Amino acid sequence: MSKYCMGIDLGGTFIKFGLLDSQMKPSGLFQLPTPTEGSDAVVRQMVAGGLKLMQDHQLTAQDIAAVGIGSPGPINITKGVVISLPNIPGMNNVPLRDMVAAGLKLRAVLENDANAAGLGEYICGAGKGGGDMVLLTLGTGVGGGIIVDGKVLHGLHEMGAELGHMIVQPDGEPCNCGQKGCLERYSSATFLAQYATRLIKEGRPSLLQKPLAAKGEIDARDIVQASKAGDSLATEVWDRATFYLALGCVNICRIFDPGRIVLAGGMTKAGDDLLTPVQRHFERLHWSLHKPVTEITLSTLGNDAGVFGAAGVAWAFATAAK
Amino acid sequence: MSKYCMGIDLGGTFIKFGLLDSQMKPSGLFQLPTPTEGSDAVVRQMVAGGLKLMQDHQLTAQDIAAVGIGSPGPINITKGVVISLPNIPGMNNVPLRDMVAAGLKLRAVLENDANAAGLGEYICGAGKGGGDMVLLTLGTGVGGGIIVDGKVLHGLHEMGAELGHMIVQPDGEPCNCGQKGCLERYSSATFLAQYATRLIKEGRPSLLQKPLAAKGEIDARDIVQASKAGDSLATEVWDRATFYLALGCVNICRIFDPGRIVLAGGMTKAGDDLLTPVQRHFERLHWSLHKPVTEITLSTLGNDAGVFGAAGVAWAFATAAK
Repeated sequence: MSKYCMGIDLGGTFIKFGLLDSQMKPSGLFQLPTPTEGSDAVVRQMVAGGLKLMQDHQLTAQDIAAVGIGSPGPINITKGVVISLPNIPGMNNVPLRDMVAAGLKLRAVLENDANAAGLGEYICGAGKGGGDMVLLTLGTGVGGGIIVDGKVLHGLHEMGAELGHMIVQPDGEPCNCGQKGCLERYSSATFLAQYATRLIKEGRPSLLQKPLAAKGEIDARDIVQASKAGDSLATEVWDRATFYLALGCVNICRIFDPGRIVLAGGMTKAGDDLLTPVQRHFERLHWSLHKPVTEITLSTLGNDAGVFGAAGVAWAFATAAK
Repeated sequence: MSKYCMGIDLGGTFIKFGLLDSQMKPSGLFQLPTPTEGSDAVVRQMVAGGLKLMQDHQLTAQDIAAVGIGSPGPINITKGVVISLPNIPGMNNVPLRDMVAAGLKLRAVLENDANAAGLGEYICGAGKGGGDMVLLTLGTGVGGGIIVDGKVLHGLHEMGAELGHMIVQPDGEPCNCGQKGCLERYSSATFLAQYATRLIKEGRPSLLQKPLAAKGEIDARDIVQASKAGDSLATEVWDRATFYLALGCVNICRIFDPGRIVLAGGMTKAGDDLLTPVQRHFERLHWSLHKPVTEITLSTLGNDAGVFGAAGVAWAFATAAK
């Protein structure tokens, strides 16, 4: 019986590698730079990293049940194909799963990176032992990973768990997706900063004028700092972001009734400055039929959730394939 | 091997009985009045109906794999207990599952009626063959049933699938649940009629004044008729209900990406007068990244979905228990 599954997480800057044993204990984490010379170079790097991982831990192919590959989207999970990656040149219609499988002489499975991160937190991070779990990643956009009965929810056409595109404000802010009022237009780091910038350019006074003038842009961290310094615009912007995030969490509770909602991504660097107002809004917006039973919490694995989650996907695949 | 599972659907006025064979083919449907003399009388009626069903079809206990009981809530599925039923006297903390099981000398399982109806449509109704499915029941309130990978989604604390309490309008209409802006405050038959009544009482002119004066109340059917007769208030009210329903459907697509969303309950008597505007709003609100791949459709089983879905729950239970 195989002892491990391997996880490989393809990111725009680094490719991460790691192992998950059959008790779901993670180990062996390291990373290599993501090549920019096209898909063959990316596959070579993934295979080289996978072989190094096996060598470093004195493992043979018999010791590895399967390899899970996490990738940004859009991807076709069933076919194992990366359709296109805006941040990695040359990654268009690449049969990544089968190329990596052939290179490593191991069975492989492909998964969306947000889903993999969700499973990673569920298996060995902030979701561990807490039952059904929903992950919200708050970065450039808002991503989602949904774990029900230990399994990743994909949707019939592999387009589910797009939690950043739940409409939280009818006829609200226009989104690139063509909808209006999507959660990510209110609660992602990028759009939060865009909104603050818009208000400042409309002439609203704010401490944020200084970093905006100095850097040409502001980020979520600037907003948190200005808010803590008593800036009313920053406070209003942060409050709006945490309000809609909490509203999204209430809806997730009504739909999934999960054990935990885990917040991840760049914005969670704010720590309690994020979690406390989200929880406050959540308790206020939540129904009164029952006290909240879903815990909202911060990611514990951070950027390492995806690689171990990918290995978890591989375990699910290897177990089902038996 | 057993040939059938039995479904029993407990309603406020009738108890329904039916069979589902191992090919998921429904048969044997009949109903008995729901006793109002308390829980013992209800259990006696359920057992009597179950025995009659077996007698009518010349079945012995060996022929029935299990009994599924659908009940309004709140219930405790794991414990098989009905906690309270506002519409049936004396049904407080009743161990309904075990009482019916003992009376019929068969294994039994309890399920929420909306979940059962969802599974019924999925197995042998409007959801048949369509993959993952979400049911929305539009009646007094808005209920939900979610079927993923052929299984009912309950949530960790059995409080999931409360789709009528998704917040679709921040700071919107106050709901009895303590939240504001719940879907059911916009798109249920009851609150739709309440909203029209409120506008009329505020002095807005409408053809609906006549039925309101004559009957003391108006219903969804009156509103559809007045709208078709060109009444602008009725048209506005119906448009608001179908808009929010469509917005809920968009969010269901972003989250579950199901094959079908099935609309059921009293309001679906309006047929295409409901479906057409919901689909129109849905297509308009839906993202442009991809054409809608989820079909919105009307229930085909109507009030019979619950009894066959309850039998489907029994099949899932019997199969898992093997």
